Amino acid sequence: MENSTIDLALQASYQAFLQYKNLPLKRRSELLKSIALEIENTGDTLITTGMQETNLAEARLRGEKARTIFQLNSYAEACERGNWLEASIDTANAERTPPKPDIRKMLVPLGPVVVFGASNFPYAYSTAGGDTASAFAAGCSVIVRAHFAHKKTSVLMANAIAAAIKKCNLPQALFTHITEEGNATGAALVQHPLTKAVGFTGSFNGGKAIWEMAHQRKEPIPVFAEMSSINPVYLLPEKLNEAAEITAKNLATSITLGAGQFCTNPGIIVGVAGGGLEKFKLTLAAEIENITPAKMLHDGIANNYREKRKAILNQPDVVLLAATNSRVTDAHDIPTIATVPAKVFLQNPALKEEVFGSFSLIVCCNNMEELYEVAKNMGGQLTTTLMATAADIKDHEMIVDEIKNHCGRIIFNNVPTGVEVCQAMQHGGPWPATTDSRFGSVGADAIKRFGRPITYQNCPNELLPPELQNNNSLNIWRTINNELTKESI
Amino acid sequence: MENSTIDLALQASYQAFLQYKNLPLKRRSELLKSIALEIENTGDTLITTGMQETNLAEARLRGEKARTIFQLNSYAEACERGNWLEASIDTANAERTPPKPDIRKMLVPLGPVVVFGASNFPYAYSTAGGDTASAFAAGCSVIVRAHFAHKKTSVLMANAIAAAIKKCNLPQALFTHITEEGNATGAALVQHPLTKAVGFTGSFNGGKAIWEMAHQRKEPIPVFAEMSSINPVYLLPEKLNEAAEITAKNLATSITLGAGQFCTNPGIIVGVAGGGLEKFKLTLAAEIENITPAKMLHDGIANNYREKRKAILNQPDVVLLAATNSRVTDAHDIPTIATVPAKVFLQNPALKEEVFGSFSLIVCCNNMEELYEVAKNMGGQLTTTLMATAADIKDHEMIVDEIKNHCGRIIFNNVPTGVEVCQAMQHGGPWPATTDSRFGSVGADAIKRFGRPITYQNCPNELLPPELQNNNSLNIWRTINNELTKESI
Repeated sequence: MENSTIDLALQASYQAFLQYKNLPLKRRSELLKSIALEIENTGDTLITTGMQETNLAEARLRGEKARTIFQLNSYAEACERGNWLEASIDTANAERTPPKPDIRKMLVPLGPVVVFGASNFPYAYSTAGGDTASAFAAGCSVIVRAHFAHKKTSVLMANAIAAAIKKCNLPQALFTHITEEGNATGAALVQHPLTKAVGFTGSFNGGKAIWEMAHQRKEPIPVFAEMSSINPVYLLPEKLNEAAEITAKNLATSITLGAGQFCTNPGIIVGVAGGGLEKFKLTLAAEIENITPAKMLHDGIANNYREKRKAILNQPDVVLLAATNSRVTDAHDIPTIATVPAKVFLQNPALKEEVFGSFSLIVCCNNMEELYEVAKNMGGQLTTTLMATAADIKDHEMIVDEIKNHCGRIIFNNVPTGVEVCQAMQHGGPWPATTDSRFGSVGADAIKRFGRPITYQNCPNELLPPELQNNNSLNIWRTINNELTKESI
Repeated sequence: MENSTIDLALQASYQAFLQYKNLPLKRRSELLKSIALEIENTGDTLITTGMQETNLAEARLRGEKARTIFQLNSYAEACERGNWLEASIDTANAERTPPKPDIRKMLVPLGPVVVFGASNFPYAYSTAGGDTASAFAAGCSVIVRAHFAHKKTSVLMANAIAAAIKKCNLPQALFTHITEEGNATGAALVQHPLTKAVGFTGSFNGGKAIWEMAHQRKEPIPVFAEMSSINPVYLLPEKLNEAAEITAKNLATSITLGAGQFCTNPGIIVGVAGGGLEKFKLTLAAEIENITPAKMLHDGIANNYREKRKAILNQPDVVLLAATNSRVTDAHDIPTIATVPAKVFLQNPALKEEVFGSFSLIVCCNNMEELYEVAKNMGGQLTTTLMATAADIKDHEMIVDEIKNHCGRIIFNNVPTGVEVCQAMQHGGPWPATTDSRFGSVGADAIKRFGRPITYQNCPNELLPPELQNNNSLNIWRTINNELTKESI
């Protein structure tokens, strides 16, 4: 794509941003709800196109469509609720020496946001997904670079967004859809001076490359990249003794869900050797062998799965425990479980590489001390799961505490797949899970990624944005002289 | 400094962090209040040592000491108030298909924080300054690299902190004071794997070097560096006509306050040519010529001031308007005002360089269109000041809107120097003012720099941190199912 075309797109996006950012929260919320409605109205075309392009099953895609609509409506509500603005007022005091000025603060949008969607969520983490929705809620314009693997789906979504923008009487350039492939186009988008933030969901290498580019700019910009996570599951002793089979069955479902193509797929399972772990392994192996393989998203992902799976299985002391018996084509996944002694795992960094697909490695420890060592040496993760009784947790407080240092979400006796869309969800985590552990990409707080605080000092009341005026006409929560309140001044 | 010494220090700091992070908020608050008390108890030694090391006047240092104590107590209160935790709960719903899990989120501390203090605030932005206080409030351990120019002051402050830690019965390694000079020591601190964040106040080159180092780590970490700002002041037409003299007098005081050694010093003044601007220039020149020069912080700063001042004065079309008439030594500042036509300013990036000291450049525009161009081309700033009547602001909405894009704080008819310590203050701004415009270093929100969200999914109530348990025993504000409340569940 010509750089001049990208320049024109960014110039237009910036002009649209300048208009949009000053509109009332209600207008942003209307846009989001209108996009939700337009997506609803795409009907089955969106589903059939998604199925053709991603190999994902109809039920899954219908679920994801509903989720995308839910997300847009959630962000609409959160946007108007206004808590994310962090509106804050410290009133003046003329009596003080020196006189105390009037100080008021809120988040303002950063500017045009470039979004790179995920292959594995063609709706919910893509063109009209969480990044786009939260950027619109924050008051930003959005430029989406379509994922090459589901370009037709992306066009349908882009059309829905464009229709909503038109209905809401907003500038068309508020949303730009770029279908041109190639790294150069992506790089030009990240490097353009008017781009003010980037959202990305994908591989570690892709995310890191974008992040580096963004930091080499004259004016560096934030990149929110969700990259790589192996989502360890720790099996604690009493739980293993009490519930090895049901735990194994639940994990088998989680490991193979959607051909394992989830960022929260449990790729590592850690337990202490013994009767419980043996029973767990037997059950898990039996379950995995009976899974019907599924076609993966696209050939690149399937090839990558085969290569990474092979690379791990070829590492010293890694033993194949179970693989699906069904006949598969090159496009299918091969649900697979392998095992490795903890001592080997601790010494071989290759075993911590993400295998994107239905693959999980069981790390067998000799004792809890070794399990603690494994926990200490785990890189940053989106999730960590603890299969543990209350007694387990009390007996191994240090381990639980250590685990928390390495993840964005800690799950107790649930599977990590399935990311609830709600305010309290943290979908993020320490490097290399994401580029910025202080933010997440799911739930209302994701809006804050695309804002920065600005303070107005001694601004005449009528010239303040409505969010900060004396009269709290929007009925939002504000911190006034250190107290949260909905009162006016 | 030996890397092994730094390694030992970081290991100890990390162990102290592991202990400290799980203590109740009250214990953190007690520590901060205790540090404030210990500083109070240093009595005049702190002041006389500060005067010797920084050349700052007694009254200024007494004020700064009081401010430092106030900051520590403010962070103590904010820490216990707990709003910064962003505690958030979405309760379970077993009836839903699939069942909705219980999801709870709050900020947890990042880990050991390395702080590089500022030369110009030996107390408030240094050893026991805002970065240290907010990191302690967040639950982090702190390693301070003493500023070479006020090492004795730094030791006094470090002793106060150490005494407070002892009185509060906390691990001594919660605070580490490193007095060794040299870039290698600083680099080793930033690069150590156990360092999880960096706070810095100083020059652009220093901040950028640290920021780059932090991003080249295997696990990159956030750097909050306050670096470079020329804090433009825009003089709008009606205001100039109505109040040229008083505006000039107020700015003369602001420009020369503390020998101009403030990060919010007004370095650029922009106005449209005419009678108002002429009167403003005459008054400002007369004021500046009568200012008594002051000794700068140290020889390096004074030399740097002379060089940068000379570099700007030597640029084409820059005209010296006024400089103090008093006799000065090489250690003194030379309060100086110069002028340049806007057309020249727009074409010469050298004129946007910060001159740290009492220097200000008046940019003379031919008309408001040119002033708008200047505003559009201004880099990121901590502050922007608008000297404007209400009519000015209404007549030039586009300019006011543009100005907001480039700063962290916009000030109406006040001077930029003097940073009120309160929740609504944003002391930060777009690059190159700081490395991260989404955060600030003054006020309660500064605590959030050193935390990241973590979500607990389906965690048994009694194993949750008290902030997230059903019973809101700490009486903090929490978002429960999207509603802010202090209720228990």
